[in-house]
Amino acid sequence: MTNILPSYVNGAWWTPADPAQADTTLVRDASTGDVITAVSTTGLDLAGALDYARTVGQDSLGRLTFHQRAMILKQLAQALTERKDELYALSSRAGATKSDSWIDIDGGIGVLFTYSSKGRRELPNGTVYVDGPAEQLSKDGSFLGQHVYTRLSGVAVQINAFNFPVWGALEKFAPAFLAGVPSLIKPATPTGYLAEAFVRILVESGLLPEGSLQLVSGAVPGLFESLRLGDLVGFTGSASTAERLRAHDSVQTGGVRFTSETDSINASVLGPDAVAGTPEFDAYVKQLVAELTAKSGQKCTAIRRAIVPDAAVDDLVSAVRARIDERVVIGDPRAEGVTMGPLASVEQRDEVLRQVERLRAGGGEVVIGSTDAPSVRRADGSESADQSGAFVAPIVLRFADNTASAAHTIEAFGPVASILGYGSTAEAIATVARGDGSLVTSIATHDPQVAVELVGGIAALNGRVLILDRDDARTSTGHGSPVPHLVHGGPGRAGGGEELGGIRAVLHHMQRTAVQGSPDMLTAITGVWHTGAAVKTAGAHPFRKSLAELRIGDSVHSESRTVTLDDIEQFAKFTGDTFYAHMDEEAAAANPFFPGRVAHGYLLVSWAAGLFVDPAPGPVLANYGLENLRFITPVSPGDSIRIDLTAKQISPRETDEYGEVRWDAVIRNQNDETVATYDVLTLVAKELAA
Amino acid sequence: MTNILPSYVNGAWWTPADPAQADTTLVRDASTGDVITAVSTTGLDLAGALDYARTVGQDSLGRLTFHQRAMILKQLAQALTERKDELYALSSRAGATKSDSWIDIDGGIGVLFTYSSKGRRELPNGTVYVDGPAEQLSKDGSFLGQHVYTRLSGVAVQINAFNFPVWGALEKFAPAFLAGVPSLIKPATPTGYLAEAFVRILVESGLLPEGSLQLVSGAVPGLFESLRLGDLVGFTGSASTAERLRAHDSVQTGGVRFTSETDSINASVLGPDAVAGTPEFDAYVKQLVAELTAKSGQKCTAIRRAIVPDAAVDDLVSAVRARIDERVVIGDPRAEGVTMGPLASVEQRDEVLRQVERLRAGGGEVVIGSTDAPSVRRADGSESADQSGAFVAPIVLRFADNTASAAHTIEAFGPVASILGYGSTAEAIATVARGDGSLVTSIATHDPQVAVELVGGIAALNGRVLILDRDDARTSTGHGSPVPHLVHGGPGRAGGGEELGGIRAVLHHMQRTAVQGSPDMLTAITGVWHTGAAVKTAGAHPFRKSLAELRIGDSVHSESRTVTLDDIEQFAKFTGDTFYAHMDEEAAAANPFFPGRVAHGYLLVSWAAGLFVDPAPGPVLANYGLENLRFITPVSPGDSIRIDLTAKQISPRETDEYGEVRWDAVIRNQNDETVATYDVLTLVAKELAA
Repeated sequence: MTNILPSYVNGAWWTPADPAQADTTLVRDASTGDVITAVSTTGLDLAGALDYARTVGQDSLGRLTFHQRAMILKQLAQALTERKDELYALSSRAGATKSDSWIDIDGGIGVLFTYSSKGRRELPNGTVYVDGPAEQLSKDGSFLGQHVYTRLSGVAVQINAFNFPVWGALEKFAPAFLAGVPSLIKPATPTGYLAEAFVRILVESGLLPEGSLQLVSGAVPGLFESLRLGDLVGFTGSASTAERLRAHDSVQTGGVRFTSETDSINASVLGPDAVAGTPEFDAYVKQLVAELTAKSGQKCTAIRRAIVPDAAVDDLVSAVRARIDERVVIGDPRAEGVTMGPLASVEQRDEVLRQVERLRAGGGEVVIGSTDAPSVRRADGSESADQSGAFVAPIVLRFADNTASAAHTIEAFGPVASILGYGSTAEAIATVARGDGSLVTSIATHDPQVAVELVGGIAALNGRVLILDRDDARTSTGHGSPVPHLVHGGPGRAGGGEELGGIRAVLHHMQRTAVQGSPDMLTAITGVWHTGAAVKTAGAHPFRKSLAELRIGDSVHSESRTVTLDDIEQFAKFTGDTFYAHMDEEAAAANPFFPGRVAHGYLLVSWAAGLFVDPAPGPVLANYGLENLRFITPVSPGDSIRIDLTAKQISPRETDEYGEVRWDAVIRNQNDETVATYDVLTLVAKELAA
Repeated sequence: MTNILPSYVNGAWWTPADPAQADTTLVRDASTGDVITAVSTTGLDLAGALDYARTVGQDSLGRLTFHQRAMILKQLAQALTERKDELYALSSRAGATKSDSWIDIDGGIGVLFTYSSKGRRELPNGTVYVDGPAEQLSKDGSFLGQHVYTRLSGVAVQINAFNFPVWGALEKFAPAFLAGVPSLIKPATPTGYLAEAFVRILVESGLLPEGSLQLVSGAVPGLFESLRLGDLVGFTGSASTAERLRAHDSVQTGGVRFTSETDSINASVLGPDAVAGTPEFDAYVKQLVAELTAKSGQKCTAIRRAIVPDAAVDDLVSAVRARIDERVVIGDPRAEGVTMGPLASVEQRDEVLRQVERLRAGGGEVVIGSTDAPSVRRADGSESADQSGAFVAPIVLRFADNTASAAHTIEAFGPVASILGYGSTAEAIATVARGDGSLVTSIATHDPQVAVELVGGIAALNGRVLILDRDDARTSTGHGSPVPHLVHGGPGRAGGGEELGGIRAVLHHMQRTAVQGSPDMLTAITGVWHTGAAVKTAGAHPFRKSLAELRIGDSVHSESRTVTLDDIEQFAKFTGDTFYAHMDEEAAAANPFFPGRVAHGYLLVSWAAGLFVDPAPGPVLANYGLENLRFITPVSPGDSIRIDLTAKQISPRETDEYGEVRWDAVIRNQNDETVATYDVLTLVAKELAA
């Protein structure tokens, strides 16, 4: 009997108690059709697993800050890197070539590294994310508003597609984990063994907080009935499945967040300037063939519509045909020299061929490739055209009518694309728009005006737009490659969801809430000092306090210092900044903003540093920057200035003996008018040196 | 025959061609029951109106920048202000007291003013909104990613509730208009005459760009069938209607954005410290009574659940009863001394009384007020208890069991609230959570630890949380008042939507898209210079160019200047900044970040200004600030520095003779290492002085 692929739930590996009685689905090798494993969830307590996440998982993740979770993500990435050969070995069974596997496995690990890094650089070392500046809601400053994000209270259910079993799962897991929301991963059955393998590595690493990651290998009947407010579902797959799941009461009225990323009929536009012979034409052809053949075209981001100037269609067909002939070797990924593997299963192959027939019936003429079984290279080096594997040759169709519905609505999820001609750029935009929303559209042009016009017309229909030209062709990550830094998802047919995009995806696992209250209360809740909140000036100078001693609100109120005309002249001479507002009384007075000669803004902030600094060696190690400086009231000779410096935010680093301290700085004049406001950024030691 | 209330579509006022044949619904005065008007859309070409918005409206708004749209919003607010007496006169017919009307009318006008101001301060003077920093996607900087928002291509359909006919419409219209998306307003029938009145004022002002605002007074059969990708619907009203609308194919699979704001069972928690006798207890009682009686409790944000320490329940009931007795006078809003008007209609009154009966059946005991017809003051000064108006007295129920489902699920949309006791703060959190998502929860406490614990437990269940204490009780805008600066909406039962929140709501009318390309292409598309894009150093110094001449990429590359130990000492002496890293070789070398004594960061930026400045009077009027300064490589005596300053973003002001110019500043040393990066903010004249 075939072994059943384990699930990982409630903190333990699980398979059906009585495999003989379990409903099972067999999983086969894409090239050979050999049975690899089977999946079954007969008897699995799914509701119990969800509750385990909501209790144990929420609790263990809730005890960690954003930075602590980010550190674990890095360690998880390292654990996977050490054992990635195991994943590569399995990946070829799914029909993936070495480079396909690289996208999936190294790409997935890369997502963890990126989220670890971004989590530490772009999130505070706490659990509340502050969104935007505080809003003054009363004239006296006693009542403020502040938007914050806090994590959702439930579980993130992640339903993945078969084509990227590692990357697809990790790109959903990483932001959920960073947000502090436990994940339950439901892989697609045909490649679930790869998900099982990477989850096993993570579990065996011992790094996972209890309940933070569960895996269900197999069907999930009744899943949505068990979901409730605070849970969210991230779905990648077909539009029809997304539609069915989204319609569930839990989503429609129960408050469960549902985000979907579905295959779309993505376009790639050749600009009117990018005729044959230009670097843009060559880059366009290269990218089109890459998208046809990478993962055998089984990518939701692949190019389905090549939209090109009418006059360039023939050139394009020739160039694409030549490149395919030259580059593409179809076969078992384990065979030497193979550049394109089979589809994930014979069922997928048959489905793709059915859709190609529909495209033909809808007006498409096959101009490259065919639906016949291609000649394939076997693992033993032999070549044959038999049908036991899931092989399909690259197929390109040409539509005489660029409004033909079939080209814009039918997706063959394999190495298949359609060519559509256009006249004007307006027609190109209208042709892209017929796809009713896409994950990505690429544009090959070296003309900024063409780019501006096309992007302006299509951006709102796409989650991502790539502009390809001679300047970035070599370094472009490619039309079909989502990157963790940028959002992945798109409107309409693309599912309407948004994943990745750095911290943006973390925030999709949190709730934005406007908190109103006094400065003291907002300070307590956000961990960020708000103007008007309590300050403490008694005791030691705050620069004498390590992170162990320093508290939000610790403050130094400086002496005041009078500015003279001689000071201004001396500073001008020293710096070379002889701008007339500082040097010429008459010209300065004619300026709409100055009463006459005024002190340099840089003089003021330089003096302010002299006024607040405590010079002897101590825990404050460096001033590494300054933010949001605004000069509000000009300072004339005879005015005096003083500064209040208050510890605003304290962020110890997880991996260093110091951390960041942000100080609120306000310079005022002798009349208590605000002269300048800014934040001073310093590095401060965690402990006082012995 | 009753006059039919006009709609405003396709740029003209419209009523049924044959009123005698039209389906009509009568609209009555809330206090007297007199017929005011009737509504009908028999024969209205709704699909045509939507297309008019998508073509003419998109076109006219698309020709304006964010700032230009913001200026029009201000002018529209001024037009409404001038004629607001007309709106107040109508508002009393809807049962609104003077203060109720103020919330609706002046509140609505205030939203326009706020969006006008925020639009000019927080959006660029262009049409593309840049979201977050550019992401480096290649090591050599030739391939970047940048998130941008561009407006949706369709129409914003705004379906409003009866309770705030002016504010409710304007709070949806303002952000749509600012985004550049035309609006089609569908008011609730019972108060649609107020929407008609304000739209008439706006139309008569002549300020509205063609097609930017349409009004449909009456039913909208077939609306959703006519919507498509690029359109969005903002709905305020009942959860059941929201559910029905959301289920439409246009939303589920057609890519139409749907956001809803539905009444929720909002809570107000009295903290364990806020016992009778504290300022927090008094503020809590005052707020609770205000929420019961303002707009006669017909607010989606009103307090429905008063969650108080078990020991405080009796005190609360007494205090609330006393305040109602003392303050509340029910009657026709046109009568002298009336503080609480009728509900919007007798149908609403009957519905509220039915829900009160359900609350009683579910375990609630009426402890204040009753369902009997209250004694009411008529416009002529007489008092009586007859049932011809839509009057209901404030009613407070008490539930012995704080888990009783009725208290958490049944909403009586009138002057009705329930009191629930709690033991621990954990129990208070669990009790709030039983509401399954709310627009707002308020908390009365003066203990920051209580606030942190409660907010941590409930924030993700709420769109807004208000903390009431002695410090903000006097200035608080109140539990039930959304403010334009902060988001309005909430998860779960509250509809899952988000409105207002300043620019956040503008972005909800736009699509976020990740754009990838070369620095030159991203510069062209965003209007913001990206590192690596072309610069122009030939010709005049950029400080000699007015906004009319200055171009993105205009740059000055300075001479270099060598820093000596004497310079550092001189600067230290002049500024008083004698931090040891500048003054003490041994101590500086012991610091982990410095090789020995280094120049002050403020010396470097001060010198940089001297290196790039062009001192004579000219178009550059002032340096008003600086952003994102980071010191990257320390500068030692003997090192030299130079600066590249490049025009990064140019924002002419609509109402001034100058605008903002943001400059990219990079200081490098003699080895081409980056010493510091920042943005310099200047004000520059539009034209050269004559």
